[in-house]
Amino acid sequence: MDSDEFYMQMALAEARRALEEGEIPVGAVVVCGDRVVAKARNQTERLNDSTAHAEMLALTAAMNALGAKYLPDCTMYVTLEPCHMCAGAAYWSKLGRLVYGASDEQRGYARLGCPLHPRTRVRRGVLADEAAALLKIFFENIRK
Amino acid sequence: MDSDEFYMQMALAEARRALEEGEIPVGAVVVCGDRVVAKARNQTERLNDSTAHAEMLALTAAMNALGAKYLPDCTMYVTLEPCHMCAGAAYWSKLGRLVYGASDEQRGYARLGCPLHPRTRVRRGVLADEAAALLKIFFENIRK
Repeated sequence: MDSDEFYMQMALAEARRALEEGEIPVGAVVVCGDRVVAKARNQTERLNDSTAHAEMLALTAAMNALGAKYLPDCTMYVTLEPCHMCAGAAYWSKLGRLVYGASDEQRGYARLGCPLHPRTRVRRGVLADEAAALLKIFFENIRK
Repeated sequence: MDSDEFYMQMALAEARRALEEGEIPVGAVVVCGDRVVAKARNQTERLNDSTAHAEMLALTAAMNALGAKYLPDCTMYVTLEPCHMCAGAAYWSKLGRLVYGASDEQRGYARLGCPLHPRTRVRRGVLADEAAALLKIFFENIRK
């Protein structure tokens, strides 16, 4: 397992917790060097806030933890491709690197053509099948 | 003064407070019917959080005030055209109507082609000169 997979497993654990809580299962982890500075999961239902995506919560928590408004030395791992709101948050944070799992063909920032910061490097598709499987379980449960 | 100008004056008062606090002067107000349910100003410096834009804070405050995850019956007044993060937040909130002042030719959602919710109606240019004048003061102060 490479270190991206290691941290993505941590983000997947957050996504599984979200699923258990009845949330759309998306998890995020922010890493600075070899230190995990934030972990978060989608909490739109619990917080009754449609903007409480895992990435928003993780980025804000990372800034709080580091006492820094910008995160150029951080990598955010997120199980699903960010939406344009979360891509915008990553943009403003000057995130150094984004690693995501499953692609979101409908609402992902890439599909919409919305920007990350020009200095943010991107790797996608890390443990994508695991992330997609959790989402599939969630939406199948809704249909029942 | 029409009611849009009335509420935009309220948003401009928030922007002026932000300017006094050394923040980029942007203010936002969320109105539901004839009730102001949230007021906020940019707080990226004070909160040391580059995502703490006026719109993000106002939308979350409005959802808290109403106990509702969606804001289809609300209008958000904001002194500057939202960025793609804030447009995304408005998208997820299913905001009924967006009224903004000055356009942001560099980082505005419209320029970037990033979506609002398809049901969100938009009016722009309300008291735009006043909003732009505050921003000009801020950026002139920085250069000094």
